[in-house]
Amino acid sequence: MTPVDLRLYGIIDPDRAAGRDPVDLVRQAVAGGTTLIQYRDKRADGRRLVELARALKEALQNTGVPLVINDRVDIALAAGADGVHLGQDDMHPADARFLLGERAIIGLTIKTPEQADALVRMPVDYSCIGGVFGTMSKHNPSAPIGIDGLAAIAVRARTATRAPLGAIAGIDASNVQAVVEAGADGIAVISALFMAPDPRAEAQRLRSIVDKSLASRSSLP
Amino acid sequence: MTPVDLRLYGIIDPDRAAGRDPVDLVRQAVAGGTTLIQYRDKRADGRRLVELARALKEALQNTGVPLVINDRVDIALAAGADGVHLGQDDMHPADARFLLGERAIIGLTIKTPEQADALVRMPVDYSCIGGVFGTMSKHNPSAPIGIDGLAAIAVRARTATRAPLGAIAGIDASNVQAVVEAGADGIAVISALFMAPDPRAEAQRLRSIVDKSLASRSSLP
Repeated sequence: MTPVDLRLYGIIDPDRAAGRDPVDLVRQAVAGGTTLIQYRDKRADGRRLVELARALKEALQNTGVPLVINDRVDIALAAGADGVHLGQDDMHPADARFLLGERAIIGLTIKTPEQADALVRMPVDYSCIGGVFGTMSKHNPSAPIGIDGLAAIAVRARTATRAPLGAIAGIDASNVQAVVEAGADGIAVISALFMAPDPRAEAQRLRSIVDKSLASRSSLP
Repeated sequence: MTPVDLRLYGIIDPDRAAGRDPVDLVRQAVAGGTTLIQYRDKRADGRRLVELARALKEALQNTGVPLVINDRVDIALAAGADGVHLGQDDMHPADARFLLGERAIIGLTIKTPEQADALVRMPVDYSCIGGVFGTMSKHNPSAPIGIDGLAAIAVRARTATRAPLGAIAGIDASNVQAVVEAGADGIAVISALFMAPDPRAEAQRLRSIVDKSLASRSSLP
Protein backbone atom coordinates (compact mmCIF):
# COMPACT_ATOMS: atom_id res chain seq x y z
CA MET A 1 0.00 0.00 0.00
CA THR A 2 1.24 3.45 -0.92
CA PRO A 3 1.32 5.92 2.01
CA VAL A 4 -0.94 8.85 1.16
CA ASP A 5 -0.96 12.23 2.84
CA LEU A 6 -4.62 13.25 2.94
CA ARG A 7 -4.27 16.32 5.12
CA LEU A 8 -5.35 18.71 2.37
CA TYR A 9 -6.76 16.95 -0.66
CA GLY A 10 -7.61 19.38 -3.46
CA ILE A 11 -10.01 18.27 -6.17
CA ILE A 12 -9.74 20.36 -9.29
CA ASP A 13 -12.85 20.39 -11.47
CA PRO A 14 -12.75 22.84 -14.40
CA ASP A 15 -16.45 23.51 -13.77
CA ARG A 16 -15.63 24.71 -10.25
CA ALA A 17 -12.69 26.95 -11.06
CA ALA A 18 -14.39 30.30 -11.63
CA GLY A 19 -13.22 30.29 -15.24
CA ARG A 20 -9.55 30.20 -14.31
CA ASP A 21 -6.80 27.90 -15.64
CA PRO A 22 -6.95 24.61 -13.68
CA VAL A 23 -3.19 24.05 -13.98
CA ASP A 24 -2.45 27.47 -12.57
CA LEU A 25 -4.93 26.96 -9.71
CA VAL A 26 -3.32 23.64 -8.82
CA ARG A 27 0.13 25.23 -8.73
CA GLN A 28 -1.18 27.84 -6.30
CA ALA A 29 -2.94 25.28 -4.12
CA VAL A 30 0.19 23.13 -3.88
CA ALA A 31 2.32 26.17 -3.05
CA GLY A 32 -0.10 26.72 -0.14
CA GLY A 33 0.33 23.22 1.24
CA THR A 34 -2.11 20.95 -0.60
CA THR A 35 -0.89 17.38 -0.16
CA LEU A 36 -2.81 15.47 -2.86
CA ILE A 37 -4.54 16.52 -6.08
CA GLN A 38 -7.47 14.88 -7.84
CA TYR A 39 -8.53 15.82 -11.34
CA ARG A 40 -12.27 15.44 -11.72
CA ASP A 41 -14.05 16.35 -14.92
CA LYS A 42 -17.42 14.90 -15.82
CA ARG A 43 -17.86 16.92 -19.01
CA ALA A 44 -14.63 16.65 -20.98
CA ASP A 45 -14.12 13.95 -23.60
CA GLY A 46 -11.20 11.52 -23.41
CA ARG A 47 -8.86 13.54 -25.61
CA ARG A 48 -9.19 16.60 -23.40
CA LEU A 49 -8.99 14.56 -20.20
CA VAL A 50 -5.63 13.09 -21.22
CA GLU A 51 -4.35 16.51 -22.24
CA LEU A 52 -5.30 18.26 -19.01
CA ALA A 53 -4.21 15.32 -16.84
CA ARG A 54 -0.78 15.44 -18.48
CA ALA A 55 -0.54 19.19 -17.91
CA LEU A 56 -1.47 18.73 -14.24
CA LYS A 57 1.05 15.91 -13.81
CA GLU A 58 3.74 18.10 -15.32
CA ALA A 59 2.83 20.98 -13.02
CA LEU A 60 3.19 18.66 -10.02
CA GLN A 61 6.61 17.39 -11.02
CA ASN A 62 9.18 17.77 -8.21
CA THR A 63 6.50 18.85 -5.72
CA GLY A 64 6.06 15.41 -4.16
CA VAL A 65 2.29 15.88 -4.51
CA PRO A 66 0.63 12.98 -6.33
CA LEU A 67 -2.11 13.28 -8.93
CA VAL A 68 -5.08 10.93 -9.01
CA ILE A 69 -7.79 10.91 -11.66
CA ASN A 70 -11.47 10.63 -10.86
CA ASP A 71 -13.06 7.43 -12.15
CA ARG A 72 -11.10 6.92 -15.39
CA VAL A 73 -8.33 4.36 -15.02
CA ASP A 74 -7.48 4.70 -18.72
CA ILE A 75 -6.88 8.44 -18.39
CA ALA A 76 -4.64 7.82 -15.37
CA LEU A 77 -2.63 5.27 -17.37
CA ALA A 78 -2.37 7.44 -20.49
CA ALA A 79 -1.35 10.54 -18.53
CA GLY A 80 1.08 8.80 -16.20
CA ALA A 81 -0.92 9.92 -13.17
CA ASP A 82 -0.29 8.34 -9.78
CA GLY A 83 -3.66 6.66 -9.43
CA VAL A 84 -7.41 7.01 -9.41
CA HIS A 85 -10.22 7.98 -7.12
CA LEU A 86 -13.26 5.73 -7.39
CA GLY A 87 -16.86 6.01 -6.32
CA GLN A 88 -18.98 3.04 -5.36
CA ASP A 89 -20.42 2.90 -8.91
CA ASP A 90 -17.09 3.20 -10.67
CA MET A 91 -14.90 0.28 -11.65
CA HIS A 92 -14.28 -2.03 -8.68
CA PRO A 93 -11.04 -1.17 -6.81
CA ALA A 94 -9.77 -4.72 -7.40
CA ASP A 95 -10.11 -4.27 -11.17
CA ALA A 96 -8.44 -0.88 -10.97
CA ARG A 97 -5.60 -2.39 -8.92
CA PHE A 98 -5.12 -5.11 -11.52
CA LEU A 99 -4.84 -2.50 -14.28
CA LEU A 100 -2.76 0.08 -12.40
CA GLY A 101 -0.42 -2.14 -10.44
CA GLU A 102 0.70 -2.30 -6.83
CA ARG A 103 2.36 1.09 -6.70
CA ALA A 104 -0.63 3.13 -7.84
CA ILE A 105 -2.73 5.14 -5.41
CA ILE A 106 -6.34 3.98 -5.34
CA GLY A 107 -8.90 5.87 -3.30
CA LEU A 108 -12.55 5.13 -2.67
CA THR A 109 -15.51 7.18 -1.52
CA ILE A 110 -17.65 5.56 1.15
CA LYS A 111 -20.99 6.89 2.29
CA THR A 112 -22.43 4.25 4.62
CA PRO A 113 -21.27 2.12 7.56
CA GLU A 114 -21.63 -0.97 5.35
CA GLN A 115 -19.30 0.53 2.76
CA ALA A 116 -16.86 1.28 5.58
CA ASP A 117 -16.97 -2.36 6.70
CA ALA A 118 -16.31 -3.48 3.12
CA LEU A 119 -12.96 -1.63 3.15
CA VAL A 120 -11.52 -4.70 4.82
CA ARG A 121 -11.44 -6.45 1.45
CA MET A 122 -10.74 -3.43 -0.76
CA PRO A 123 -7.23 -2.86 -2.15
CA VAL A 124 -7.36 0.89 -1.54
CA ASP A 125 -4.71 3.29 -0.25
CA TYR A 126 -7.14 5.74 1.27
CA SER A 127 -10.85 6.36 1.52
CA CYS A 128 -13.01 9.44 1.80
CA ILE A 129 -16.23 9.57 3.74
CA GLY A 130 -18.59 11.37 1.40
CA GLY A 131 -21.69 13.47 1.72
CA VAL A 132 -20.67 15.05 5.03
CA PHE A 133 -22.35 18.41 4.41
CA GLY A 134 -24.41 19.87 1.59
CA THR A 135 -22.38 20.96 -1.41
CA MET A 136 -22.67 22.91 -4.65
CA SER A 137 -20.00 20.80 -6.37
CA LYS A 138 -21.94 17.59 -6.80
CA HIS A 139 -25.49 16.45 -6.94
CA ASN A 140 -25.94 14.20 -3.90
CA PRO A 141 -29.39 12.66 -3.74
CA SER A 142 -28.96 11.58 -0.11
CA ALA A 143 -29.20 13.89 2.89
CA PRO A 144 -25.85 15.00 4.37
CA ILE A 145 -24.58 12.68 7.09
CA GLY A 146 -23.24 15.50 9.26
CA ILE A 147 -20.53 15.32 11.91
CA ASP A 148 -22.28 12.51 13.81
CA GLY A 149 -22.66 10.40 10.68
CA LEU A 150 -19.01 11.04 9.82
CA ALA A 151 -17.86 9.95 13.27
CA ALA A 152 -19.95 6.78 13.15
CA ILE A 153 -18.63 5.77 9.73
CA ALA A 154 -15.06 6.67 10.72
CA VAL A 155 -15.21 4.24 13.65
CA ARG A 156 -16.35 1.43 11.37
CA ALA A 157 -13.69 2.30 8.77
CA ARG A 158 -10.92 2.23 11.41
CA THR A 159 -11.73 -1.34 12.30
CA ALA A 160 -11.72 -2.33 8.61
CA THR A 161 -8.53 -0.65 7.39
CA ARG A 162 -5.40 1.20 8.45
CA ALA A 163 -5.48 3.31 5.29
CA PRO A 164 -5.97 7.02 5.91
CA LEU A 165 -9.45 8.38 5.99
CA GLY A 166 -10.56 11.70 4.51
CA ALA A 167 -13.87 13.50 4.47
CA ILE A 168 -15.61 15.23 1.58
CA ALA A 169 -18.59 17.44 0.71
CA GLY A 170 -19.20 20.97 1.88
CA ILE A 171 -16.02 21.20 3.94
CA ASP A 172 -14.53 24.67 4.44
CA ALA A 173 -12.61 26.62 7.07
CA SER A 174 -15.71 26.85 9.28
CA ASN A 175 -16.04 23.10 9.85
CA VAL A 176 -12.56 21.64 9.33
CA GLN A 177 -11.80 21.34 13.02
CA ALA A 178 -15.04 19.46 13.73
CA VAL A 179 -14.36 17.13 10.80
CA VAL A 180 -10.88 16.24 12.02
CA GLU A 181 -12.09 15.86 15.59
CA ALA A 182 -14.76 13.45 14.30
CA GLY A 183 -11.99 11.20 13.01
CA ALA A 184 -10.87 12.35 9.56
CA ASP A 185 -7.14 12.38 8.79
CA GLY A 186 -7.67 15.17 6.34
CA ILE A 187 -10.17 17.02 4.20
CA ALA A 188 -11.04 16.85 0.51
CA VAL A 189 -12.11 20.20 -0.88
CA ILE A 190 -13.29 21.45 -4.23
CA SER A 191 -15.05 24.80 -4.08
CA ALA A 192 -13.52 25.94 -0.78
CA LEU A 193 -10.12 25.79 -2.44
CA PHE A 194 -10.60 26.33 -6.16
CA MET A 195 -13.42 28.85 -6.11
CA ALA A 196 -11.47 30.92 -3.58
CA PRO A 197 -10.09 34.25 -4.85
CA ASP A 198 -6.61 33.23 -3.64
CA PRO A 199 -6.23 29.42 -3.63
CA ARG A 200 -2.71 29.61 -2.24
CA ALA A 201 -3.77 31.63 0.79
CA GLU A 202 -6.86 29.46 1.25
CA ALA A 203 -4.75 26.29 1.12
CA GLN A 204 -2.46 27.72 3.80
CA ARG A 205 -5.44 28.59 5.98
CA LEU A 206 -7.14 25.18 5.60
CA ARG A 207 -3.90 23.26 6.02
CA SER A 208 -3.07 25.15 9.18
CA ILE A 209 -6.45 24.29 10.73
CA VAL A 210 -6.06 20.62 9.72
CA ASP A 211 -2.56 20.47 11.18
CA LYS A 212 -3.62 22.08 14.47
CA SER A 213 -6.68 19.86 14.76
CA LEU A 214 -4.64 16.71 14.07
CA ALA A 215 -2.05 17.79 16.65
CA SER A 216 -4.62 18.42 19.36
CA ARG A 217 -6.37 15.12 18.53
CA SER A 218 -3.16 13.13 18.89
CA SER A 219 -2.33 14.87 22.19
CA LEU A 220 -5.63 13.84 23.73
CA PRO A 221 -5.17 11.88 26.95
CA MET B 1 -2.63 -4.68 -37.63
CA THR B 2 -5.42 -7.08 -36.71
CA PRO B 3 -7.65 -8.07 -39.66
CA VAL B 4 -11.21 -6.98 -38.92
CA ASP B 5 -14.36 -8.18 -40.64
CA LEU B 6 -16.60 -5.14 -40.84
CA ARG B 7 -19.32 -6.59 -43.04
CA LEU B 8 -21.98 -6.38 -40.37
CA TYR B 9 -20.90 -4.38 -37.35
CA GLY B 10 -23.53 -4.39 -34.62
CA ILE B 11 -23.41 -1.71 -31.94
CA ILE B 12 -25.32 -2.65 -28.84
CA ASP B 13 -26.51 0.27 -26.74
CA PRO B 14 -28.85 -0.63 -23.84
CA ASP B 15 -30.74 2.59 -24.58
CA ARG B 16 -31.50 1.32 -28.09
CA ALA B 17 -32.58 -2.21 -27.25
CA ALA B 18 -36.34 -1.78 -26.78
CA GLY B 19 -35.97 -2.81 -23.14
CA ARG B 20 -34.59 -6.25 -23.96
CA ASP B 21 -31.49 -7.96 -22.54
CA PRO B 22 -28.41 -6.68 -24.43
CA VAL B 23 -26.57 -9.99 -24.05
CA ASP B 24 -29.47 -11.92 -25.50
CA LEU B 25 -29.81 -9.49 -28.40
CA VAL B 26 -26.12 -9.81 -29.21
CA ARG B 27 -26.39 -13.61 -29.24
CA GLN B 28 -29.23 -13.37 -31.73
CA ALA B 29 -27.42 -10.84 -33.91
CA VAL B 30 -24.30 -13.00 -34.06
CA ALA B 31 -26.37 -16.09 -34.88
CA GLY B 32 -27.66 -14.06 -37.85
CA GLY B 33 -24.20 -13.25 -39.20
CA THR B 34 -22.99 -10.15 -37.36
CA THR B 35 -19.20 -10.01 -37.72
CA LEU B 36 -18.17 -7.51 -35.03
CA ILE B 37 -19.83 -6.20 -31.87
CA GLN B 38 -19.37 -2.86 -30.17
CA TYR B 39 -20.70 -2.14 -26.70
CA ARG B 40 -21.67 1.50 -26.39
CA ASP B 41 -23.23 2.90 -23.26
CA LYS B 42 -23.09 6.58 -22.42
CA ARG B 43 -25.18 6.35 -19.27
CA ALA B 44 -23.84 3.45 -17.23
CA ASP B 45 -21.18 3.95 -14.56
CA GLY B 46 -17.89 2.08 -14.64
CA ARG B 47 -18.99 -0.80 -12.42
CA ARG B 48 -21.94 -1.62 -14.68
CA LEU B 49 -19.87 -1.11 -17.85
CA VAL B 50 -17.35 -3.73 -16.73
CA GLU B 51 -20.10 -6.12 -15.73
CA LEU B 52 -22.01 -5.91 -19.01
CA ALA B 53 -18.84 -5.91 -21.10
CA ARG B 54 -17.77 -9.14 -19.38
CA ALA B 55 -21.17 -10.71 -20.00
CA LEU B 56 -21.00 -9.74 -23.68
CA LYS B 57 -17.46 -11.08 -24.00
CA GLU B 58 -18.57 -14.35 -22.47
CA ALA B 59 -21.55 -14.58 -24.83
CA LEU B 60 -19.19 -14.13 -27.78
CA GLN B 61 -16.80 -16.87 -26.68
CA ASN B 62 -16.18 -19.43 -29.44
CA THR B 63 -18.08 -17.37 -31.99
CA GLY B 64 -15.00 -15.76 -33.52
CA VAL B 65 -16.77 -12.41 -33.28
CA PRO B 66 -14.70 -9.78 -31.45
CA LEU B 67 -16.01 -7.28 -28.92
CA VAL B 68 -14.88 -3.68 -28.88
CA ILE B 69 -15.85 -1.09 -26.29
CA ASN B 70 -16.89 2.42 -27.16
CA ASP B 71 -14.49 5.07 -25.89
CA ARG B 72 -13.38 3.47 -22.59
CA VAL B 73 -9.99 1.79 -22.85
CA ASP B 74 -10.10 0.93 -19.15
CA ILE B 75 -13.37 -0.95 -19.51
CA ALA B 76 -11.94 -2.88 -22.47
CA LEU B 77 -8.89 -3.83 -20.38
CA ALA B 78 -10.89 -4.80 -17.30
CA ALA B 79 -13.39 -6.88 -19.27
CA GLY B 80 -10.84 -8.58 -21.53
CA ALA B 81 -12.54 -7.14 -24.62
CA ASP B 82 -10.76 -7.23 -27.96
CA GLY B 83 -10.38 -3.49 -28.36
CA VAL B 84 -12.03 -0.10 -28.49
CA HIS B 85 -13.87 2.14 -30.85
CA LEU B 86 -12.85 5.78 -30.62
CA GLY B 87 -14.38 9.03 -31.78
CA GLN B 88 -12.30 12.04 -32.73
CA ASP B 89 -12.76 13.52 -29.22
CA ASP B 90 -11.91 10.30 -27.39
CA MET B 91 -8.42 9.28 -26.31
CA HIS B 92 -5.98 9.49 -29.24
CA PRO B 93 -5.60 6.14 -31.04
CA ALA B 94 -1.85 6.21 -30.37
CA ASP B 95 -2.46 6.42 -26.62
CA ALA B 96 -5.05 3.65 -26.82
CA ARG B 97 -2.59 1.50 -28.78
CA PHE B 98 0.07 2.05 -26.13
CA LEU B 99 -2.32 0.91 -23.40
CA LEU B 100 -3.97 -1.96 -25.28
CA GLY B 101 -1.00 -3.39 -27.15
CA GLU B 102 -0.40 -4.43 -30.74
CA ARG B 103 -2.98 -7.20 -30.87
CA ALA B 104 -5.97 -5.10 -29.83
CA ILE B 105 -8.54 -3.89 -32.34
CA ILE B 106 -8.72 -0.11 -32.48
CA GLY B 107 -11.35 1.59 -34.62
CA LEU B 108 -11.92 5.26 -35.32
CA THR B 109 -14.88 7.27 -36.56
CA ILE B 110 -14.06 9.80 -39.26
CA LYS B 111 -16.45 12.43 -40.50
CA THR B 112 -14.46 14.67 -42.81
CA PRO B 113 -11.98 14.31 -45.71
CA GLU B 114 -9.26 15.76 -43.45
CA GLN B 115 -9.89 13.10 -40.82
CA ALA B 116 -9.68 10.51 -43.61
CA ASP B 117 -6.29 11.89 -44.67
CA ALA B 118 -5.08 11.72 -41.06
CA LEU B 119 -5.62 7.95 -41.04
CA VAL B 120 -2.19 7.66 -42.63
CA ARG B 121 -0.63 8.26 -39.22
CA MET B 122 -3.25 6.56 -37.04
CA PRO B 123 -2.57 3.10 -35.58
CA VAL B 124 -6.12 1.88 -36.28
CA ASP B 125 -7.39 -1.48 -37.52
CA TYR B 126 -10.51 -0.08 -39.13
CA SER B 127 -12.39 3.16 -39.49
CA CYS B 128 -16.03 4.07 -39.85
CA ILE B 129 -17.25 7.01 -41.87
CA GLY B 130 -19.81 8.62 -39.63
CA GLY B 131 -22.88 10.77 -40.05
CA VAL B 132 -23.91 9.20 -43.35
CA PHE B 133 -27.65 9.59 -42.84
CA GLY B 134 -29.81 11.05 -40.11
CA THR B 135 -30.19 8.83 -37.05
CA MET B 136 -32.17 8.48 -33.86
CA SER B 137 -29.30 6.74 -32.03
CA LYS B 138 -26.98 9.69 -31.58
CA HIS B 139 -27.19 13.43 -31.55
CA ASN B 140 -25.18 14.55 -34.55
CA PRO B 141 -24.95 18.33 -34.76
CA SER B 142 -23.71 18.25 -38.37
CA ALA B 143 -25.88 17.61 -41.42
CA PRO B 144 -25.70 14.06 -42.81
CA ILE B 145 -23.02 13.65 -45.48
CA GLY B 146 -25.13 11.35 -47.66
CA ILE B 147 -23.94 8.85 -50.24
CA ASP B 148 -21.90 11.45 -52.15
CA GLY B 149 -20.12 12.59 -48.99
CA LEU B 150 -19.47 8.97 -48.04
CA ALA B 151 -17.98 8.23 -51.46
CA ALA B 152 -15.75 11.32 -51.33
CA ILE B 153 -14.41 10.51 -47.86
CA ALA B 154 -13.95 6.83 -48.78
CA VAL B 155 -11.68 7.77 -51.67
CA ARG B 156 -9.51 9.88 -49.37
CA ALA B 157 -9.43 7.13 -46.72
CA ARG B 158 -8.33 4.52 -49.29
CA THR B 159 -5.25 6.55 -50.14
CA ALA B 160 -4.41 6.93 -46.45
CA THR B 161 -4.87 3.38 -45.18
CA ARG B 162 -5.48 -0.21 -46.20
CA ALA B 163 -7.55 -0.84 -43.07
CA PRO B 164 -11.18 -1.70 -43.75
CA LEU B 165 -13.70 1.06 -43.94
CA GLY B 166 -17.22 0.95 -42.53
CA ALA B 167 -20.08 3.41 -42.60
CA ILE B 168 -22.38 4.46 -39.78
CA ALA B 169 -25.51 6.47 -39.01
CA GLY B 170 -28.99 5.78 -40.26
CA ILE B 171 -28.05 2.68 -42.25
CA ASP B 172 -30.72 0.05 -42.76
CA ALA B 173 -31.82 -2.48 -45.36
CA SER B 174 -33.07 0.29 -47.66
CA ASN B 175 -29.69 1.92 -48.19
CA VAL B 176 -27.09 -0.80 -47.55
CA GLN B 177 -26.47 -1.46 -51.21
CA ALA B 178 -25.85 2.20 -51.97
CA VAL B 179 -23.49 2.47 -48.99
CA VAL B 180 -21.40 -0.50 -50.12
CA GLU B 181 -21.38 0.71 -53.72
CA ALA B 182 -20.12 4.08 -52.45
CA GLY B 183 -17.06 2.31 -51.06
CA ALA B 184 -17.82 0.92 -47.61
CA ASP B 185 -16.55 -2.58 -46.75
CA GLY B 186 -19.41 -3.02 -44.35
CA ILE B 187 -22.05 -1.31 -42.28
CA ALA B 188 -22.29 -0.37 -38.63
CA VAL B 189 -25.84 -0.52 -37.31
CA ILE B 190 -27.51 0.19 -34.00
CA SER B 191 -31.25 0.64 -34.25
CA ALA B 192 -31.70 -1.25 -37.53
CA LEU B 193 -30.40 -4.35 -35.79
CA PHE B 194 -31.15 -4.03 -32.09
CA MET B 195 -34.51 -2.28 -32.24
CA ALA B 196 -35.68 -4.88 -34.77
CA PRO B 197 -38.33 -7.33 -33.51
CA ASP B 198 -36.12 -10.24 -34.62
CA PRO B 199 -32.43 -9.25 -34.53
CA ARG B 200 -31.32 -12.63 -35.87
CA ALA B 201 -33.53 -12.39 -38.95
CA GLU B 202 -32.58 -8.75 -39.45
CA ALA B 203 -28.88 -9.60 -39.22
CA GLN B 204 -29.34 -12.29 -41.86
CA ARG B 205 -31.16 -9.86 -44.13
CA LEU B 206 -28.58 -7.06 -43.73
CA ARG B 207 -25.62 -9.40 -44.05
CA SER B 208 -27.03 -10.91 -47.21
CA ILE B 209 -27.39 -7.47 -48.84
CA VAL B 210 -23.85 -6.51 -47.75
CA ASP B 211 -22.42 -9.74 -49.13
CA LYS B 212 -24.22 -9.39 -52.47
CA SER B 213 -23.24 -5.75 -52.79
CA LEU B 214 -19.59 -6.54 -52.01
CA ALA B 215 -19.63 -9.38 -54.55
CA SER B 216 -21.07 -7.25 -57.32
CA ARG B 217 -18.61 -4.44 -56.48
CA SER B 218 -15.61 -6.75 -56.75
CA SER B 219 -16.85 -8.19 -60.05
CA LEU B 220 -17.01 -4.76 -61.69
CA PRO B 221 -14.89 -4.55 -64.83
